[in-house]
Amino acid sequence: MDDRIKKQLDFSLEIDKEKNIFRQTSLSGHGRKENDAEHAWHMAIMAYLLKEYANEEVDIAKVMIMCLIHDIVEIDAGDTYAYDPEALKTQREREEKAKERIFSLLPDDQKEELTALFDEFEACETSESKFAHSMDNLQPLILNNSNNGSDWKEHGVYAKQVYERQGKTQLGSEKLYEITASIIEENINKGNLK
Amino acid sequence: MDDRIKKQLDFSLEIDKEKNIFRQTSLSGHGRKENDAEHAWHMAIMAYLLKEYANEEVDIAKVMIMCLIHDIVEIDAGDTYAYDPEALKTQREREEKAKERIFSLLPDDQKEELTALFDEFEACETSESKFAHSMDNLQPLILNNSNNGSDWKEHGVYAKQVYERQGKTQLGSEKLYEITASIIEENINKGNLK
Repeated sequence: MDDRIKKQLDFSLEIDKEKNIFRQTSLSGHGRKENDAEHAWHMAIMAYLLKEYANEEVDIAKVMIMCLIHDIVEIDAGDTYAYDPEALKTQREREEKAKERIFSLLPDDQKEELTALFDEFEACETSESKFAHSMDNLQPLILNNSNNGSDWKEHGVYAKQVYERQGKTQLGSEKLYEITASIIEENINKGNLK
Repeated sequence: MDDRIKKQLDFSLEIDKEKNIFRQTSLSGHGRKENDAEHAWHMAIMAYLLKEYANEEVDIAKVMIMCLIHDIVEIDAGDTYAYDPEALKTQREREEKAKERIFSLLPDDQKEELTALFDEFEACETSESKFAHSMDNLQPLILNNSNNGSDWKEHGVYAKQVYERQGKTQLGSEKLYEITASIIEENINKGNLK
């Protein structure tokens, strides 16, 4: 086996570990918590299906691969809950270290490519990264809404916090933000959000 | 919410159930069995990383969405183990019914589009579907190989069966089939395959 393909397969095996990184979102039907790989799979399909609502034109292959890899750093850094202020303080540093270790398993050109895609997602400035962020927000929102807001209730989340986080959806899609806002309002009315 | 987006979100919520469909492949590190959503996520990333080895040029967005959705029918039809001859007999019928029900949740144009992608994958005639099949084979192979063939040993699988199934990899990628054949041979030598 030549060195290039060996590195690509080593990386492919390493990312299997993402299936063991669990998030705070419960599966529909009041299921168990979902993991990062499942979340990324779900986001990528939703991106494909909802691309007509992106504010700007997007390269859908780029959006999909961005969705698929955006949480790979959590293999080392762990999942940081969006409403945990202490964990958010150290998130950047933990994820930078992880990014370097994990993407270094790849051949240099692909290390560069995936690192650039990861950084582009994080910066949230291009049309693709903005739309990918909309999916990162919308996917757990529809699960949590289907469970009558159980994830918010478990953590005592405030409506203000959800608006802050979900606000980013608007950058990628005005239309999907309209839906988001109506889901949040409905959950406030039901008492699911403080 | 207009009817179109309601249908798209209903479908998005429905496919969450794919995370509960478990396969016969164990996660690396002798972990639990993996589910269909995790498998599809893994395949799509591998397709992106290994696309240089496709026999023919591929539209990578198409390969990725094909990988992501190819097991959605198993929400109703269940997972059919590649080496279970009884289950294989009824697989087509079970999956046809499931395809009709699940994709009908989408707006008509997207029902048509996803059904066509699913059928194209199954037919395995185009460059994209052949390469997607290579991933469908290679992904569980690298996991099983990392676990010293534990999935084969659990089911008493014969080398001949593995060659038959993995042979399809060659249609999508000669190069990846070379790797496949060497992995199979190694596992025969270790006594992991009968």
